[in-house]
Amino acid sequence: MTVSPIRSVLIIGSGLIGASLGLALRAREVAVWLEDTREESLRIAVERGAGLAEPPDGDPDLVLVAVPPASAALVIVNSLRRYLTSTVSDVASTKARLQRDVEAMTSDIDRFVPGHPLAGREVSGPGAARADLFADRVWALTPSTRTDPARTAGVAALVESLGAVVVQTSPEEHDRAVALTSHTPQVVSSLVAAGLDPLGDAEVRLSGQGLRDVTRLANSDPGLWTEILTSNAEPVSDALDLLIGRLASVRDGLRRGPDGSEAVRAELTAGVAGAAKVPGKHGSGPVQYAVVPVLIADRPGELGRLFAAAASTGVNLEDVRIEHAQGRPTGLVELEVEPASSGRLAEGLRAGGFDVRD
Amino acid sequence: MTVSPIRSVLIIGSGLIGASLGLALRAREVAVWLEDTREESLRIAVERGAGLAEPPDGDPDLVLVAVPPASAALVIVNSLRRYLTSTVSDVASTKARLQRDVEAMTSDIDRFVPGHPLAGREVSGPGAARADLFADRVWALTPSTRTDPARTAGVAALVESLGAVVVQTSPEEHDRAVALTSHTPQVVSSLVAAGLDPLGDAEVRLSGQGLRDVTRLANSDPGLWTEILTSNAEPVSDALDLLIGRLASVRDGLRRGPDGSEAVRAELTAGVAGAAKVPGKHGSGPVQYAVVPVLIADRPGELGRLFAAAASTGVNLEDVRIEHAQGRPTGLVELEVEPASSGRLAEGLRAGGFDVRD
Repeated sequence: MTVSPIRSVLIIGSGLIGASLGLALRAREVAVWLEDTREESLRIAVERGAGLAEPPDGDPDLVLVAVPPASAALVIVNSLRRYLTSTVSDVASTKARLQRDVEAMTSDIDRFVPGHPLAGREVSGPGAARADLFADRVWALTPSTRTDPARTAGVAALVESLGAVVVQTSPEEHDRAVALTSHTPQVVSSLVAAGLDPLGDAEVRLSGQGLRDVTRLANSDPGLWTEILTSNAEPVSDALDLLIGRLASVRDGLRRGPDGSEAVRAELTAGVAGAAKVPGKHGSGPVQYAVVPVLIADRPGELGRLFAAAASTGVNLEDVRIEHAQGRPTGLVELEVEPASSGRLAEGLRAGGFDVRD
Repeated sequence: MTVSPIRSVLIIGSGLIGASLGLALRAREVAVWLEDTREESLRIAVERGAGLAEPPDGDPDLVLVAVPPASAALVIVNSLRRYLTSTVSDVASTKARLQRDVEAMTSDIDRFVPGHPLAGREVSGPGAARADLFADRVWALTPSTRTDPARTAGVAALVESLGAVVVQTSPEEHDRAVALTSHTPQVVSSLVAAGLDPLGDAEVRLSGQGLRDVTRLANSDPGLWTEILTSNAEPVSDALDLLIGRLASVRDGLRRGPDGSEAVRAELTAGVAGAAKVPGKHGSGPVQYAVVPVLIADRPGELGRLFAAAASTGVNLEDVRIEHAQGRPTGLVELEVEPASSGRLAEGLRAGGFDVRD
């Protein structure tokens, strides 16, 4: 299998993903052309240096389709027809239905390498584009059985050169995975929040940090998420069906009284096993950090003073969580560190006058 | 209504809650006696200065029952029988069933003021006790219709003197509220994590921050949580039933195809409304903070340098979230501040050489 390096790319769609790709590729001396029906977006992307607003010079090595999901299939098929030797890839967040739609319109699909970079959540548009958007992010590739493996390898080499981590799966496995790891959490977060409806102001104060964690995703755009969920309707509805079965098992266990408690415990125990599968922050599987809890006053400079003191111990903070008490400005800060370092950090902070809890 | 101040307290149960109460009360010059069948726990609590391991000097003004839930009803009833003039209160986390159990054993319940301090999650035992455990925490009181209002007012005044914020509801309202705000999020978190079971290592990497948030509670003690859930079986099973109904509505909407998308959108929209009810960090209702995202290297001292720079701007950080990219040590830190201060913070951090994202 001969893998040709990709040296020229036409990016169709100059939003956050397309423009960021342009910046990243040009920084690696790849020739980049940009195309977009939205003139303003294209102008900004070109001004940012993401590529040239010209037709490519012959067939580019790669056409990267980064348009909204609704038009992705058509643009992919048109690209396969316009550029008869180019590899064509895309960035849509669900894959199986899109790939079926493409295959329904053309049989010329050995040059199509479907992809999905998991990046770019917080902001949108070419103004927010960054050359390092894909660094350390997973980039899924979901070739079909008919995709030319050499072309898949070429796209993989390109996105790895941008710092991305390639995960290759079938489109069906990809969609089931994001249904479980992304779409189901979104739905659950929204519906737990929706369930608070009957509570009055006083009652809703009877809550802890857990409610905030679980409902954090609920304040999302319903239109956008309806589009995402319907684009992955079958795997998401199957995942919700399984979740409903588990919830019903807990509900029925609780209603059976003492006889049912074993069913409740079994589901919670399965949850502990599942939690161990959630990727840790460095992508190398889940990591258990030690927690050093510090009680601090919630006033300007206090967090700065705490982190300066932590830095002076030389211990690397892996994560930080701040819990605020209700009604008053005090808070518990949880510093997560490698277990071997927790003693040194606690000692250093106590020496700095901080109230480290046992 | 004459409310007598409480000047003497017998605390039964010398764990985290009981011993912390003892420390807090003695700091306010309340006489405290401790009782516990667990000798080692009692010894530690006394050594920490939480109270005297002696029988009280006559009827104490208050008997505070802080024993594990399974024995709470019996200890409450025994206390009402032993101390015929004392107010009796408790700290159990679910109320209606406990209050029914107490009323089934005694009619002498006008002196019983049921309570539930929402405090003390991370650690347990008298060694972890703190006088400030209840400061700024909600303390629910759930008097029945037969509870003497003057005694409820007396307990309320006492716990407010410890810095707690009293929320008074009926036991049924309390239990429904914690079913929705605490017990349902716990179950959902466990079951979403349990649903990851079929995924392989590569597939589970196709996840983002949302999965971590939603499954954060899942790594909890199944035995403890089975006990908590069964103690609130009816409200929890009702809450799960409603959640199942909403999930089924989304599932069925997705399966109906384009015709079903309105049902999906309606549920997600209800979630946005529900998210607005989640209490903000200062207990005064939800607050929308502005987010200042900063990309930093994940190395020792980097967070310290960031927070020192933030402190030098004089802007108070309301919350901090750190997102790590997969596979490599870089991270996005989200600083949450009052919207009016976000510009000043971003400017100050940029001046300090930090990579503040748009």
